[in-house]
Amino acid sequence: MDNINLGRHISGQFNEDLENVINHVMHMGGLVEKQLSDSLTAVYDADEALAKNVLANDYKINALEVSIDDECTRIIAKRQPAAGDLRLIMAIVKTIADLERIGDEAQKIARVALENFSGEQKALLLNLDNLGRKVLEFLQATLDAFTRMDVDSAVLTHGNDEKIDREYEALMRQLMTYMMEDPRSIPQIMSVIWSARALERIGDRCQNICEYIIYFVKGKDVRHTTAEDIKSL
Amino acid sequence: MDNINLGRHISGQFNEDLENVINHVMHMGGLVEKQLSDSLTAVYDADEALAKNVLANDYKINALEVSIDDECTRIIAKRQPAAGDLRLIMAIVKTIADLERIGDEAQKIARVALENFSGEQKALLLNLDNLGRKVLEFLQATLDAFTRMDVDSAVLTHGNDEKIDREYEALMRQLMTYMMEDPRSIPQIMSVIWSARALERIGDRCQNICEYIIYFVKGKDVRHTTAEDIKSL
Repeated sequence: MDNINLGRHISGQFNEDLENVINHVMHMGGLVEKQLSDSLTAVYDADEALAKNVLANDYKINALEVSIDDECTRIIAKRQPAAGDLRLIMAIVKTIADLERIGDEAQKIARVALENFSGEQKALLLNLDNLGRKVLEFLQATLDAFTRMDVDSAVLTHGNDEKIDREYEALMRQLMTYMMEDPRSIPQIMSVIWSARALERIGDRCQNICEYIIYFVKGKDVRHTTAEDIKSL
Repeated sequence: MDNINLGRHISGQFNEDLENVINHVMHMGGLVEKQLSDSLTAVYDADEALAKNVLANDYKINALEVSIDDECTRIIAKRQPAAGDLRLIMAIVKTIADLERIGDEAQKIARVALENFSGEQKALLLNLDNLGRKVLEFLQATLDAFTRMDVDSAVLTHGNDEKIDREYEALMRQLMTYMMEDPRSIPQIMSVIWSARALERIGDRCQNICEYIIYFVKGKDVRHTTAEDIKSL
């Protein structure tokens, strides 16, 4: 935990509380990352058992959100943190909400693995997988920036969302063209479209988490500001 | 503000802080409600100017989210609230995040008003409007429960989401059938689909806000629990 600048607190117990909660967030992040990775593999390999595993494991992420939230509220009530410590707690409360929603999106992706696709449609799944792997990398970089509370990484990582959005748009155009050419495929392709959308939403949520890191470290709320403004920090 | 049981604080200033922040949330809620209502009207009347108005006004909601968030952090740092007061602040922090996202969804809906639809397609927009009006009522009931911090209303209102989801599924089936019958319509219909999805998401967010009200009043986190568990409270 030395790599996070927690500052020095008069109370060693407070430091311990903060370290514990950060460890729990990292554990939650690891689970969410695994859920996304497994959901992508399940779709790629048409692995129904793995997909069902993803669906069955979501409750763990939900439970972590609730318990970390509770932990944060207790720390505020007991330790009455101010300035950077309070910002850290608030950043954590927001981060876990986004992580929980990323878990939900992974479930949506996993459901695609339960559908049947024709050989031709499977080519479209490859493109979904390409997008998915990039989003997974984005999530990994985000969690890495969070672990180190590294504002430079957060700013750099934040910019990934633009690339994800462009790739998502291209995939969406391809999927719409496919549906127009083969209307019978619409139900299957719609499920691919929902997955692509889920991936795009995960990118947005990673971007949110990067903004919370910047808020904690710089004390500046950069939501709803332009990428240029964020870089100029 | 008498209708909210804020309890009695030794510090009158603290009461004033809490009342102020709740007023700001109600103001934000009113704006979000207007944005959703305007976006639905813009689609129904194909009113381009009104749609552009919705798109142009979103920044106000974003700014309110940031300023209320800041206000909450300041109250925590200055007043060191505990128990119910702290739960109220945490519930507000979460509520404004959902309200902000509802504002984003309203923008997505407004964009549909900028598309051109054939006469036949306009019949589908009527069904979108039906769903939209129900979601708007859901939002109004949610904001009303929030204003009064009325846990019974929150529990009752929470149940609305199920009906919204059923209506959304029915509309989605109808839209998919339409696309299969007339593949040239796919680009237009996809934009209706995104709007329907946005409405469904708004329903989920209203449900979240109901859960925060229950959390504040009952001190129990009911996220990820069943509707039956919530009612048994």
